[in-house]
Amino acid sequence: MGVYEFKEGRRLLARVPKGGELVGHIADLLVEHDVRQGFISGIGALADAALGFYDQQTHEYHEMKLFGGLEIVSLLGNISLRNGAPHAHLHAGLAGHDGKVYGGHLARGTVFLTELVIVEFTGHELERVPDESTGLVCWP
Amino acid sequence: MGVYEFKEGRRLLARVPKGGELVGHIADLLVEHDVRQGFISGIGALADAALGFYDQQTHEYHEMKLFGGLEIVSLLGNISLRNGAPHAHLHAGLAGHDGKVYGGHLARGTVFLTELVIVEFTGHELERVPDESTGLVCWP
Amino acid sequence: MGVYEFKEGRRLLARVPKGGELVGHIADLLVEHDVRQGFISGIGALADAALGFYDQQTHEYHEMKLFGGLEIVSLLGNISLRNGAPHAHLHAGLAGHDGKVYGGHLARGTVFLTELVIVEFTGHELERVPDESTGLVCWP
Repeated sequence: MGVYEFKEGRRLLARVPKGGELVGHIADLLVEHDVRQGFISGIGALADAALGFYDQQTHEYHEMKLFGGLEIVSLLGNISLRNGAPHAHLHAGLAGHDGKVYGGHLARGTVFLTELVIVEFTGHELERVPDESTGLVCWP
Repeated sequence: MGVYEFKEGRRLLARVPKGGELVGHIADLLVEHDVRQGFISGIGALADAALGFYDQQTHEYHEMKLFGGLEIVSLLGNISLRNGAPHAHLHAGLAGHDGKVYGGHLARGTVFLTELVIVEFTGHELERVPDESTGLVCWP
Repeated sequence: MGVYEFKEGRRLLARVPKGGELVGHIADLLVEHDVRQGFISGIGALADAALGFYDQQTHEYHEMKLFGGLEIVSLLGNISLRNGAPHAHLHAGLAGHDGKVYGGHLARGTVFLTELVIVEFTGHELERVPDESTGLVCWP
C-alpha cells in the first residue's frame, strides 16, 4: 500500500458561480491557487451532470447523464498532480426531486450553487502515473 | 468564483446523544464552542429525518420525510456565519433497511447515534448574504 | 453531547492495492502509522462489498452483500481507539452500473482501486466504550 505523508497547508472555502461547469472550475481554481495536494469536498446543487462508471473488466468508462435539477448529496475527492499540474479526482452522489441518489465519478456538472471545502497538503509532491492493473492513472 | 483562504483551527470529534435533534444540536455545538468557519462531516444512524430538495425554478424547498431507522451514509457540510452567528450548511445521504440511499439538504433528524468530525478554519470571517440568482443565502 | 478537542497531526494520502480487503487494510495502515484519532475519507471502486444496517430496536446488524463492480461514491469515517488500538468507523455509499447508490456501515470490501485521505488529530486520546442505550461501542 502506497502511503504518502504531508504537512499542513491552506484551507479554502469557495463558491462556484451559477452556470459554470463544476469540474472545469475546480481545475481552474486549483491551478490558479496552486493547490497541488489535498482533500476536497462540496455540497450544493447542479442543474445537470454526467457521472462515470468504470467497467473493471473492459477498463472503459460508461457515462450516465442526469437532468432536471440535482442536490449534491456528497462531493468527495482528492487533489494530486497529473502531468505535473494540480488535478482533482472527484466522486459525487446526486439526488433528483424524488430524493433517490445516483453516484459515481463526476465527469461534468452545470452548477446551480456549489460550496467547496479544500484542505491543502504540502511538503511532498504526489504525481499520478499510468497503472496497468486497473487501466487508470493512479498514485504509485 | 469567490475563494476565501483560512488558517488552521481546532479539530473536534463529537457524539450527539440519542433522541436529540441533529441540526439543532450541531447549531448549539458551533455557538457554544464558537466554531465560525470550517468543515463538518458525520456518520451514524437516525431514527427519522427530513430532507430538503430545492426547486431551482420556483426557488422553494420541498421536504421529504424518512422513517423507520436510517443509516447516515454521509453527512457533509461547511460552517460559516449567518446573521453574525455560526451556521452549518448540511447535506446528507440516508439509507433505510433496504440499503437504498435518499439524499438532499438535511432539514431535521432524530439521532440514534451520530459521530461528528469538525475541522475549524480561522483567520477570516465569511458571512452568508442573500443571493438573487439562486434565492438562497450564500457566500458572496 | 460529548465534545473532544484535538490538535493538528499528519495528513496522509494512501492507495489501497487491487485485490485487498479494504476495512482490514485501513486497520493495518492506522496501526502501522499509529494514527489514533482523526478523519478518513475515500473514493475509488470495489469489486464487491458488504454493508451493515443496524436495527435500532433489536440492536443487531443486518448485512447486505453487493457484487458486480461498485463505484465508491463516498467513504466517510472517523478514527479513535477501541481496546487501546486505532480503529476506523466507516460508512460508505456504493453505486453499481445503474448508478443507484446503496449505503450503510462498511463491513467489508474487495478493492479494485481505493484512494484514501486521512487527517490525523492529536493531543487527546479518545477511546470507545460499550454504550447501553444503543448497544454499540461509542465515544463516552
